Formats: sequence, structure tokens, C-alpha cells
Amino acid sequence: MKQETVRISIIGFGYVGRGVAEVIRRKREYVARNYGIDLKLVGIADLWGVIADEDGLTEEAIGKLKAGEKQGDITSRDLITEIEHDVMVETTPTNVETGEPGLTHIITALESGRHVVTSNKGPIALEYGTLMDLAAKKGKELKFEASVGGAMPIISLVRQDLAGNGIISIKGILNGTCNYILTRMAEENLPYEHVLKEAQQIGIAEADSSKDVEGVDTAVKLVILANSIFGMNATYNDVKVKGIMEITPDALRLANDAGYIIKLIGDVDSGGRLEVAPRLVPKEDPLNVGGTLNVATIKTDLAGDITVIGKGAGPIEAASAIFSDIIGIYM
Amino acid sequence: MKQETVRISIIGFGYVGRGVAEVIRRKREYVARNYGIDLKLVGIADLWGVIADEDGLTEEAIGKLKAGEKQGDITSRDLITEIEHDVMVETTPTNVETGEPGLTHIITALESGRHVVTSNKGPIALEYGTLMDLAAKKGKELKFEASVGGAMPIISLVRQDLAGNGIISIKGILNGTCNYILTRMAEENLPYEHVLKEAQQIGIAEADSSKDVEGVDTAVKLVILANSIFGMNATYNDVKVKGIMEITPDALRLANDAGYIIKLIGDVDSGGRLEVAPRLVPKEDPLNVGGTLNVATIKTDLAGDITVIGKGAGPIEAASAIFSDIIGIYM
Repeated sequence: MKQETVRISIIGFGYVGRGVAEVIRRKREYVARNYGIDLKLVGIADLWGVIADEDGLTEEAIGKLKAGEKQGDITSRDLITEIEHDVMVETTPTNVETGEPGLTHIITALESGRHVVTSNKGPIALEYGTLMDLAAKKGKELKFEASVGGAMPIISLVRQDLAGNGIISIKGILNGTCNYILTRMAEENLPYEHVLKEAQQIGIAEADSSKDVEGVDTAVKLVILANSIFGMNATYNDVKVKGIMEITPDALRLANDAGYIIKLIGDVDSGGRLEVAPRLVPKEDPLNVGGTLNVATIKTDLAGDITVIGKGAGPIEAASAIFSDIIGIYM
Repeated sequence: MKQETVRISIIGFGYVGRGVAEVIRRKREYVARNYGIDLKLVGIADLWGVIADEDGLTEEAIGKLKAGEKQGDITSRDLITEIEHDVMVETTPTNVETGEPGLTHIITALESGRHVVTSNKGPIALEYGTLMDLAAKKGKELKFEASVGGAMPIISLVRQDLAGNGIISIKGILNGTCNYILTRMAEENLPYEHVLKEAQQIGIAEADSSKDVEGVDTAVKLVILANSIFGMNATYNDVKVKGIMEITPDALRLANDAGYIIKLIGDVDSGGRLEVAPRLVPKEDPLNVGGTLNVATIKTDLAGDITVIGKGAGPIEAASAIFSDIIGIYM
């Protein structure tokens, strides 16, 4: 098979960025054999250091950066603009107010003629139209499957697998932390505060989990779906949001007795409705998935209802979505 | 948007072929606007007549063919070879022993330089390797999403959305008739023969439903997944098959009491295991879907388990998968 070299940079070397580097290392041979693509990681940037090597980074250099050793005398901007490469992977933390620093990274990379693949929700939710226009102008791709639903395919599923379908609505559980909390509360008849603390102790919820439990994270993902799939021009302020903080074990028990379960559901439809709220879901509904799973039911005009379920979180899961996006550019 | 004309023929004008014609009619403007493709149906062939018009068939001509009026003095072979077009849609009935007449249609179309999109399981299960080699040699695409799971995306989901993932196994309910029968038996505590008759009366089961209830249909779909996704060279004889005819209401009740439900599960894995059999599925498992729904859980090395649920049958649903395949050729 003829091999095409694809040079990659990773900006943001936290859990997801490290997952991407690990997946590239582990899967390099597989991808060469199956897709004719020779993946070469040529640069990594994080706050404490930037490394670059146009011949491909050594394991040693990556190991040192992982260990927190300060390295390199170039900036992340230098890496994006000066080091010749094909795809910039943006995995810095999400900021839903400003989109930064991801927004600047993405604009800089597109301006420099790089394809962009990101897990960063902020820039996509805030500036979808502007960024897509820039990508189109530059003839480059901007892909963001990892920003919604982690490893669960939804953007590519709607755009490719369901191509030609009119999309009527998308409804689902897009936050694994909330799903875990509600599932445990229902199963064990425990109060919200207790389960939240437990989730924080085992690393399923962050120390500051307000963005999850207040529904903000779900709302931002809905905005991404609204703009990228429904062609809206929505922002976070267009979403009616209610979190899970006031759900009681009593409410869950009452729902259970009536054959329902309570889930934090995000709901977007072609009429412009954008809503995040706890909802009663019939137990036999495909949306009733437990633990940290994510799920989405896509209502279409031809295929009927299509439901997809997958792991919404985890570094390798997000890296998986990024990885499929990268390969998708060259398929 | 620049428009590319895509000329289409449909060979086999039963429920699915008519569904495709209907979807093309209904969606022509939508597809032109969203994908820059001008779909033009230039020929339809069935046993009782063949119509063709390089400028696009009129509604009147299609209506007459639908009404069973014998028309045209060309053969389906003439249509495939002589009438200039881009995509041949093959929707004749499945024959799992010979693959005919679909096999000949597909070979003729590829030889004539047409892309092929089909819902016909026979040719794909019997001659996958030969057909893909021929398509590659001719530089044409051969797509068959509709052959497994109807409107439920699985082939494109694995190949595109999960690109780069190693696929460990696929396990699922691939026959809506069996799922309907088992669901009704469990819900109503009714014997197999009773529910089968009911399913035949309301058109969910065919008069001769042996291929469904004996597991043959599921096995053929497994062979398609084995060859197209796992790169095997399998045939129907490699599949260990057991149907649902011996499931009793008692067995379903016992399973229910233990928190399980019985489903006809098709199972293929990268180790070469190919099996169709009734299995206990935990009630909370994503594979527990009711009615005529299809479902598949794809176990991957990066994305973890991904489950997809959708309508496995119905002319518009199969047509939907064919339609997405057609558009996918030009995306």
C-alpha cells in the first residue's frame, strides 16, 4: 500500500492529549497497514514546554515532557506556524466563556494551512460559523467529534451514515457524570450530596463539578449539535438549562414505581428548541442507559429513530474520537 | 452550490426499489441544496418491464410500471450496460444459495463502470471478495449498508465513525421478525406458534418465515459483517446456527425472573467465531431492545463498546440506507 506521511502536532498535553499521543504510538503500524497513512507526531505543546522535531518526536522527548521537564525554546504559536505539519490536534481545557486558548490555536492553525481536530468544546460552541468559514476558505478540515459524547459517534454518524436524512431532533444524555450520579441515586436510594461526593472520590466527578451538575456541559454540547447539524446560529444563552441538584431519592422512587427513570436530557430540534432538564424516561426506552454512558436518539425523516450509546468520557475514548477524525480526513 | 448530475438505475422494483424511487423523488431538492448533487432516475427494471430515459424518467412512466403495466423493449441487462448512468441500485430479492439474479446485475454494472449500491444480502455474503476486487479494479464503489440492519448504520459506522479502531467483536439482534416474536412472547406469555401467526397476519413475518426464525437471515448478515469488517473469507456454512422455534413461554418466564430476556443474537469476533443462537441478555444491557428493532454492540480496542439501535426493516428504512450510501459516494 502506498504510504502518505501525515505529520501531527498536539496542543494541550493533559489526559486527552496524552491519550492521542499514546494511540498514535500504539496504532501507527495498524494505520499504515490499513489506511496507507504514516502518522508522525512532530510537535507537542503545553504550558510548561514545547517540543518539536520534523523527523518525528522520540519516545524520550515525549517521556520527558510527560514527566513535566521544561523543554524547548519555541512557543506553541511557533510550533503551530513554523513547524511543517498537516494536522493540529487541539486538546487544551474547555473555556465556555472565551473559548481560549483553544480558539486562538485553531485560528492560527487554519491560517497556517493545517487541518484541525479538536476535543475542545469552547471554540466550537462559541465560533462555529467563523471557524468553518475560515476552514473552507483555507481548504482545510475542522473536525470535533470528540467534543460531544466522547467515543460515542454522533457528528460523523449524522453527517455520513445518515447522509440525506432530514434531522428532526436529537435527544440524549451527554454528560457521564450526571448519568452516574442519577444512576447511583436510583439504584442505592442515596441522596444527591452523598453520591456526588462518592463520584468525586473515585474521579468520575471533578472537584468543581458545577458545570456538569448544573447542566452547563450538556448545554454547550447541545449548542455544538445545534450549529453543526441543524445549521443554527445558537449560543449558550439560547439554551434553557436546569441541572440535577434538586433531584431527590423520593423523586427517583416515585418515577421508578411508575415505570420511569429520571435522566438529565439534552434536547435540540429543527424548530429551534434547545433545552437541558431532568426528564422522566420510560425504563424500556433506549435512552435509559446507566453508569457513565452517553446516549443519543436521532429522529430522522427517512431512517426513523437511530440511537447510539457509548462511553462519553475517558482519555482513550476522547483520543479514539480524535483519532478517527484524523484518519477520516485522509479516507 | 455547483451541481453534479448523478444518474441512477434501480434493478428490482419491489418494496425497497419503490422506496428508493420515492425517496429520490421526495428528497431531490434537499440533496441538490445540501450536497450539490442533482439525482436523476434514468432507468428501472423488474421482471415485468424495463423503462429507461437518459433525461430522467417521468412520474407517469414510473406510475405505469408500479401499476404493473408491461413496458419497454429492452432487458435489464441493456439498461445496466447501454443506458449511460453513474449508480446502479440493486434491490432484487435475496437468494442465499446462488446470489442470483443480483450477483449478475452487480458484476455487469461494475464491468460497465457503474457504482453499485445494494440491499441484496446474497451476492455480498457469497462473493464479497470477488466483487470488491472487481470494484477496485474498475475504480468504482460497491456499497451495501442496507443489507445489514436496514436503517441502522453499522458498516459505515464501523468503517468511518470508528476508523482506526480494531474491532474485537460485533454482537446483536439483526432480524426484526425474531425480535418481534420473542418480545411479544415475553410480554404476553404466549406460545411461539401463536405469536408467529399473529406476526404473519400483520405483515411483520412473511408467509414463509423459515429463513427468519431458523436464524438463516441473521447468519447471512453475520457473514457480511465477517467479510467486510473482519476481513474473513467466511461463508454461510461457517456459521453455527440455532433458531428460535424451540423457545417456550416457560423459558422466557424463567429468564425474566432471573433478570434476563431471551434474544436471538448474532455474534462474530476477530477470532473467527460466527454464531447465531438464542441467548440470555441482562435486562439492563443495551442489547435489550424490543419490538422489531435491530441493535448491535461493537466492541473496539479504543472506543470501548459502541451500541447502535435502529429500525431493521421497512421499505423506507432500507431505502434510507441505500440513499445515504449513494450520497456517500459523492461526499
